[in-house]
Amino acid sequence: MKKILMMTIMVISTFAGYAQLPDPGFEVDARTAIVITDPQNDFLSPDGVTWGVVGESVTANNTVENLEKLFKVAKEKGMMVFVSPHYYYKHDHNWKIEGALEALMHKINMFDRSHTLKTDGFEGSGADWLDRYKKYIDEDNVVVTNPHKVYGPESNDLALQLRKHGFDNVILAGMSSNLCTESHMRDLVESGFRVAVVKDATAGAILPGLNAYEASVVNFKMIASHVYDTDEIVTKIKAHKK
Amino acid sequence: MKKILMMTIMVISTFAGYAQLPDPGFEVDARTAIVITDPQNDFLSPDGVTWGVVGESVTANNTVENLEKLFKVAKEKGMMVFVSPHYYYKHDHNWKIEGALEALMHKINMFDRSHTLKTDGFEGSGADWLDRYKKYIDEDNVVVTNPHKVYGPESNDLALQLRKHGFDNVILAGMSSNLCTESHMRDLVESGFRVAVVKDATAGAILPGLNAYEASVVNFKMIASHVYDTDEIVTKIKAHKK
Amino acid sequence: MKKILMMTIMVISTFAGYAQLPDPGFEVDARTAIVITDPQNDFLSPDGVTWGVVGESVTANNTVENLEKLFKVAKEKGMMVFVSPHYYYKHDHNWKIEGALEALMHKINMFDRSHTLKTDGFEGSGADWLDRYKKYIDEDNVVVTNPHKVYGPESNDLALQLRKHGFDNVILAGMSSNLCTESHMRDLVESGFRVAVVKDATAGAILPGLNAYEASVVNFKMIASHVYDTDEIVTKIKAHKK
Amino acid sequence: MKKILMMTIMVISTFAGYAQLPDPGFEVDARTAIVITDPQNDFLSPDGVTWGVVGESVTANNTVENLEKLFKVAKEKGMMVFVSPHYYYKHDHNWKIEGALEALMHKINMFDRSHTLKTDGFEGSGADWLDRYKKYIDEDNVVVTNPHKVYGPESNDLALQLRKHGFDNVILAGMSSNLCTESHMRDLVESGFRVAVVKDATAGAILPGLNAYEASVVNFKMIASHVYDTDEIVTKIKAHKK
Repeated sequence: MKKILMMTIMVISTFAGYAQLPDPGFEVDARTAIVITDPQNDFLSPDGVTWGVVGESVTANNTVENLEKLFKVAKEKGMMVFVSPHYYYKHDHNWKIEGALEALMHKINMFDRSHTLKTDGFEGSGADWLDRYKKYIDEDNVVVTNPHKVYGPESNDLALQLRKHGFDNVILAGMSSNLCTESHMRDLVESGFRVAVVKDATAGAILPGLNAYEASVVNFKMIASHVYDTDEIVTKIKAHKK
Repeated sequence: MKKILMMTIMVISTFAGYAQLPDPGFEVDARTAIVITDPQNDFLSPDGVTWGVVGESVTANNTVENLEKLFKVAKEKGMMVFVSPHYYYKHDHNWKIEGALEALMHKINMFDRSHTLKTDGFEGSGADWLDRYKKYIDEDNVVVTNPHKVYGPESNDLALQLRKHGFDNVILAGMSSNLCTESHMRDLVESGFRVAVVKDATAGAILPGLNAYEASVVNFKMIASHVYDTDEIVTKIKAHKK
Repeated sequence: MKKILMMTIMVISTFAGYAQLPDPGFEVDARTAIVITDPQNDFLSPDGVTWGVVGESVTANNTVENLEKLFKVAKEKGMMVFVSPHYYYKHDHNWKIEGALEALMHKINMFDRSHTLKTDGFEGSGADWLDRYKKYIDEDNVVVTNPHKVYGPESNDLALQLRKHGFDNVILAGMSSNLCTESHMRDLVESGFRVAVVKDATAGAILPGLNAYEASVVNFKMIASHVYDTDEIVTKIKAHKK
Repeated sequence: MKKILMMTIMVISTFAGYAQLPDPGFEVDARTAIVITDPQNDFLSPDGVTWGVVGESVTANNTVENLEKLFKVAKEKGMMVFVSPHYYYKHDHNWKIEGALEALMHKINMFDRSHTLKTDGFEGSGADWLDRYKKYIDEDNVVVTNPHKVYGPESNDLALQLRKHGFDNVILAGMSSNLCTESHMRDLVESGFRVAVVKDATAGAILPGLNAYEASVVNFKMIASHVYDTDEIVTKIKAHKK
């Protein structure tokens, strides 16, 4: 009887703990950098191949403007930004093993580039940066990593570049929320980084019966060290004394 | 004008493609194994520390019975099962970097073990296997990997064991759906495995305003090669000629 | 007394086993591909920045010709080749953490490229392919992966590309033997690949009191599944019926 | 003519640079920890299964005593030590893919344990710690990670534990020099750690025509940030003010 009572109390208190998720918190310091996934036309331009499904969420979140705010404050404060892009080459279309969205991305020629060592047709293509971000990405405070090949940074040099440059803490944003952004969050956490996600500087697909953006927010809250709005984190970055 | 029309058509056809996600499919063959995450008391027993939040989903999905069906059919067919458990030791409680649920798991002593080389107090603890699975896990067709330490298999030997035993295709199930199961799906996909998820042989936390199970199903559908119900995949496994 | 005797016998038999290293063997089959590291001017051309230290070993091994034999037989047989190149960008020169040879490579501008998305000055530079390999690398049976960033494939997509294309077995060659080639061997083995090394289709630095090529051969013999000469493996590849 | 001259000068200066390898250096600070691979009987005890081939090098280097000096100074200074052990279970003996030394290790039952969750027969076995290290490993400043499964830490939680505890810099020692120790050095470097190796707190196999210890020293010098003797690094650790 006593045992059941104790167990009940424990379950309730556990539940209470859960209902109010712990907030480990996140500070902007000298070992903090920004990571942006896929700031590319195919996700963020009305001409991009996925606009039909992500446009609603991109518009609702003000994602394009919010990502620009992050690029801008980083430039002003000399804070480093690591951009992890998504490119597919001809050989990637021969993969024998694919998941659902991988098959779709290849079918609609998303992020396609002509050649690993040529840039013919790249300018202005779906794989290119959104035009308004180009002036920021070209600055010295920005590192463009190798492209990731599925969704996460397991097969590129993002984690290495962050460590080689001396960073432990990551402010994460970019596209799309439940795919590349979330896979970056998860794998960076597995590599021991402290990760905060900016939940309105990302967006996800919305389809009948499947809200990918909402799914990602659930996981940001449960897995990241903190979830920010763009304006909050921009204020925090501005307040940080170098 | 012509350009806008073409673009509209493209967007619509893209949308149509998206609305009907491609199904790359998944076959059970000689290079297919089952992977089970965290079949442990703290998730699956009414006495476990998370039952207050996952019990509803575990009960609704019949998760405990469905996982047993997978263990059972694997034994009958001599199919290999890889169990990836979750254990925490004293030193894990000293981590300086934690996300929200990591902080919670340590706070409620989830999956705690006393020592890496001792088993005092393990039997029947929250970290132990659910009692009804023990007879299966003790069989020769089951490999117990090193414990994973956050949510994914990045820091254990699961991918290596699968490759060393000759497997490319993974039928994935276990607990909890949006955390360890999904992180296993994502990282196995990044390691080049073909992954199918059994969506009612898993379950997730349900909290006010946060349905972790539903979030995981969105991601299973978008990322895996196929999503099965337990009875479907059990039938497929039974039909497979070795 | 008996125990000491038994132990002695065991030690001797162990020693005997060791003295004659096991040869697990390696077959060329439908799941076998070739991997070439760094077939670039800075290692293989007399104009390259490291010729002063690797030229002797490259010349002695006939490395340039032997690598061409591998490219040639692969083209003839339609066998896939994965080239893992080495490039450094401006941002890589800002790394705060470097080992000895990393520091050297950056100091001598080895493998330097001007920009991740531009190819100005690349043609004929130290980072470019050795001229005689270009016609092979441009063929459809060759996949050029993302560049690796230190020595191994941990931070590029080589393992992923091999798996996505359906390969388990790797014939490894390229430059330089104890650095990128050996780190590729080691990490591919950790990823569960079966690896054979072609010991005269690679070469290493020779310095006073430090023979890097010899060091690598010791490790090839102990770690790989088999060590081949170029002519042996070319014969084996030719004999393989697709 | 001028070009040839310049090239000659460049090659000579490159050679000179190479001949005198850069020494990036290594400081002991608050973010520095010690990592020890395989301090186990099968390598370090005269009863261990490999003593016949590593005993000569272990004796020449004073490896057993030097490793103890590292454990001792760490305890005195409250410095953290991460021990990465090597265990094999029954299921590891079923691997279909093995390199030469992997085949040997399984053949001679090196590092064998009976069960992942049982410790029958472990005490005093080849897989157990060398007896004189037990009192150190049991202290709170020591973290025992999951076992690695081939040679490197790719499939265990060593890198994660180091990061979660706040470490960037690693002093590396243990057994055996060209296998697990070197694979740990290489993969830790690929994960962005600054690594120094203690070259007489390790040892390697010596066989007719194959000196594994010497091979490893070549690679330590070329890949690590600095190579120490035990007494040097012990002095440096003692001098470090916490």
